[in-house]
Amino acid sequence: MFPKNAWYVACTPDEIEHKPLGRKICGEPVVFYRGPEGAIAALEDFCPHRGAPLSLGRVIDGKLVCGYHGLEMGCDGKTIAMPGQRVRGFPPIRRYPAVERHGFVWVWPGDPAQADPAKIHALHWAQDPAWAYGGGLYHIACDYRLMIDNLMDLTHETYVHADSIGQKEIDEAAPTTRVEGDEVITSRFMDNISAPPFWKMALRSNHLPDDQPVDRWQICHFTPPSHVMIEVGVALAGKGGYHAAAEHKASSIVVDFITPETETSIWYFWGMARNFKPDDPALTAAIREGQGKIFSEDLEMLERQQRNLLQWPGRNLLKLNIDAGGVQSRRVLERVLAAEQGAAAGGRDVAPEAAA
Amino acid sequence: MFPKNAWYVACTPDEIEHKPLGRKICGEPVVFYRGPEGAIAALEDFCPHRGAPLSLGRVIDGKLVCGYHGLEMGCDGKTIAMPGQRVRGFPPIRRYPAVERHGFVWVWPGDPAQADPAKIHALHWAQDPAWAYGGGLYHIACDYRLMIDNLMDLTHETYVHADSIGQKEIDEAAPTTRVEGDEVITSRFMDNISAPPFWKMALRSNHLPDDQPVDRWQICHFTPPSHVMIEVGVALAGKGGYHAAAEHKASSIVVDFITPETETSIWYFWGMARNFKPDDPALTAAIREGQGKIFSEDLEMLERQQRNLLQWPGRNLLKLNIDAGGVQSRRVLERVLAAEQGAAAGGRDVAPEAAA
Amino acid sequence: MFPKNAWYVACTPDEIEHKPLGRKICGEPVVFYRGPEGAIAALEDFCPHRGAPLSLGRVIDGKLVCGYHGLEMGCDGKTIAMPGQRVRGFPPIRRYPAVERHGFVWVWPGDPAQADPAKIHALHWAQDPAWAYGGGLYHIACDYRLMIDNLMDLTHETYVHADSIGQKEIDEAAPTTRVEGDEVITSRFMDNISAPPFWKMALRSNHLPDDQPVDRWQICHFTPPSHVMIEVGVALAGKGGYHAAAEHKASSIVVDFITPETETSIWYFWGMARNFKPDDPALTAAIREGQGKIFSEDLEMLERQQRNLLQWPGRNLLKLNIDAGGVQSRRVLERVLAAEQGAAAGGRDVAPEAAA
Repeated sequence: MFPKNAWYVACTPDEIEHKPLGRKICGEPVVFYRGPEGAIAALEDFCPHRGAPLSLGRVIDGKLVCGYHGLEMGCDGKTIAMPGQRVRGFPPIRRYPAVERHGFVWVWPGDPAQADPAKIHALHWAQDPAWAYGGGLYHIACDYRLMIDNLMDLTHETYVHADSIGQKEIDEAAPTTRVEGDEVITSRFMDNISAPPFWKMALRSNHLPDDQPVDRWQICHFTPPSHVMIEVGVALAGKGGYHAAAEHKASSIVVDFITPETETSIWYFWGMARNFKPDDPALTAAIREGQGKIFSEDLEMLERQQRNLLQWPGRNLLKLNIDAGGVQSRRVLERVLAAEQGAAAGGRDVAPEAAA
Repeated sequence: MFPKNAWYVACTPDEIEHKPLGRKICGEPVVFYRGPEGAIAALEDFCPHRGAPLSLGRVIDGKLVCGYHGLEMGCDGKTIAMPGQRVRGFPPIRRYPAVERHGFVWVWPGDPAQADPAKIHALHWAQDPAWAYGGGLYHIACDYRLMIDNLMDLTHETYVHADSIGQKEIDEAAPTTRVEGDEVITSRFMDNISAPPFWKMALRSNHLPDDQPVDRWQICHFTPPSHVMIEVGVALAGKGGYHAAAEHKASSIVVDFITPETETSIWYFWGMARNFKPDDPALTAAIREGQGKIFSEDLEMLERQQRNLLQWPGRNLLKLNIDAGGVQSRRVLERVLAAEQGAAAGGRDVAPEAAA
Repeated sequence: MFPKNAWYVACTPDEIEHKPLGRKICGEPVVFYRGPEGAIAALEDFCPHRGAPLSLGRVIDGKLVCGYHGLEMGCDGKTIAMPGQRVRGFPPIRRYPAVERHGFVWVWPGDPAQADPAKIHALHWAQDPAWAYGGGLYHIACDYRLMIDNLMDLTHETYVHADSIGQKEIDEAAPTTRVEGDEVITSRFMDNISAPPFWKMALRSNHLPDDQPVDRWQICHFTPPSHVMIEVGVALAGKGGYHAAAEHKASSIVVDFITPETETSIWYFWGMARNFKPDDPALTAAIREGQGKIFSEDLEMLERQQRNLLQWPGRNLLKLNIDAGGVQSRRVLERVLAAEQGAAAGGRDVAPEAAA
């Protein structure tokens, strides 16, 4: 159960640089490529001729040419041409609204009529030269909501990431969770503690001492369908913490886009945006490598948790105060899903398929 | 859905040279081996004692000895002996008519009473010293009819095999298809073109110039259950093309035996018979290697096409004029299957199982 | 179908030396570890907080700490503590009776109220300094009863283990089978034969000549749920065979504990206990290596037999006199299972789940 009328991150531009990309999104096999003038195109990955996946083909002059018998597909899902054939009667295939923005390719798997690019999640740092971004992609065999739970309850850092970003004080500082419309915010503040290894490095990168007490914060923002942005940072103790002046702190945003592949698997786009030393690509690479290693520690836990839940489908899980972020996020999702299904049941002039 | 009352290629003789071979054919696990006097035997791969696969055993003096407890099986499916046991009451296992011919081992998975070796596909070149043959075997996860489609519409060469046998002129020459009884023939003639790399090599092997225009042909012959023989060749332009005298052309027969393993997987026996330089084993090896590489380019396409069709089971595929060969072949198959099922429904004195 | 009210071997102590072990036993995912004072603990491998497998956690001071969010689990299945939480209302998870004895960890997957450690299979040699033991573990994809059949009919040695312990005389000596209560005993005596390679080595290790005729015996003891102990040995011919004085013979006990993982897979604990040269660890290692190699020869046969039986589910297998050991063992199992199900149907005050 995932919202379909929503913008999801489908891939990064480098993944479609040299050839089309086939990727299943929300249960639907889609081919992504650059059509005319380099605009992003997303279509059913199904050639109307004989059902071959179009992602095995090539892009020639903005047309997607099937790799089996040469059918030329347009970015609107209508066949343009095929050697020796009249193609006017060929059935169209479904197109998906897709947009390149903020360094990502976004796709809308639901009703195209509702796909307003203005609804794409705003990333203020993506166009700001004071910020730098690095990230990666993991495929994980778990329900997308398990990853939301994971990210909205960072107490797991103490146990899963004990050697890097975890520390006992996370456990000891109770988080607070609030809901603002469709956004869920879980905050945790740890004052006057010793910085863990990752943040010592960040302090040094920011020309700050790494051996002094700090105030640390983690502010997780969930927004539907499945984006989790986490403001994280440390300030030298007593300088105002989260609100300290820039010269006293090191901070960044952990970026998490969780795109369902199926009911029990996800494409997990993770990364970090930082507003210090933005012009240091070596630092970007180092952070990316470190974050990739840390985030990979979650994979086995999430996949094994998923298998356990499938083994015991009827069992209720606990909803503790530390789980409030995940619990509230699921409530928002239930509301979004109910609204989507209600709208669908209420009838529309244009069904998704017909509009493709 | 595949005909069962038909001769299929099961394996090549080298596969049973040193030990029995277990192979699933049309959904049935079969063990192949050489019985008394070297004759081919084919039985259910199931020891009547405890169900062990007989293909894990050994052949001793023409008897198939089970590798678990030593039961000795005869090539008629009746137990011959077992250490310390009287075997007269042992239940027989099913035997399959099997014959070695034309360099292949053939099996009849259906009603043994109808298995007439005279119906085995004739291969005139197999006994002719003016011809040489080389080939191989691929396992592919697709419906056998997708491979028939593939071979009866060679326009795919332009796209799938762009670097070897494909060329734009294939697309431009419309094929013609005719049906003669149960045989479907799709022909394509390309006159006055430049020979692609494979045929330049063949021309040189035939002591012909490789830099002159040629007339090229492809004549695909489908016969049930799933054999596709393709006459291919080039002649120096203007010498009569397909009908040119031998000294002006290079030609061969692409040999394709497609044996269903299950509804969605096949054993694909591919090869090439040529009537030039038959005594040059190095050339045979070189052609075999080149053909193996080219034919391997189809594997991913066919397997991904199969997965797409399973994903969208209700969707109709197009039947264009280039698809006529495959479409007509499927019609022949439907007729053969209907006849087979009609005969089965009409009653027989001897059911396949009882006759085993 | 396997008895649940029975003691099964779950693992060996070395497998839980450094971290918890997750292992599915009789269809149930269980975590094994050493709790307070080193006592064996066995629990459902399911954290009551969010369903993570506890086996991914760590043992700290005898408490099992979940590797996801730090819940501390007690060996009774009740949560002891969790950072920042009151845990009194947390639902307990199921505990399984588990005991370390005879060098193995034993588990009782059924009703805990009936789990009497006195019922654990007695291994007289395990505490006797005159004996040495070495063994290993295989995972095999077959019904546990196929392995019982295998071990209760050693005629397969002639075929599966032709190069080591097999010899033609096994086939030629008819076994006799008797049932004593729940125990099934199949005996085979081969008098005045040449010792096969393994036993020549054992004779030499025992300072006995290896080039003289011997009397050989194999006495297989099945006891439910799935233990098979096989007394094996040779004595110099004419000295009394199985009853010969110790100085004329070499003997040992083949130890087989077969623990169902699922209906079609097992954990197979194999080994050998010997009462000669018990203080020679190099000999223990050599025998272990040899036995491991021999027993691995059964794996493919058993897995392929299982697949055959799934392919032909309705087919009856033969029950020959050589199969009497397995046939009688299955009868004992049917009786045990019927009694277990009858007792369950008859009602109990405490259901297994409630008692956990």
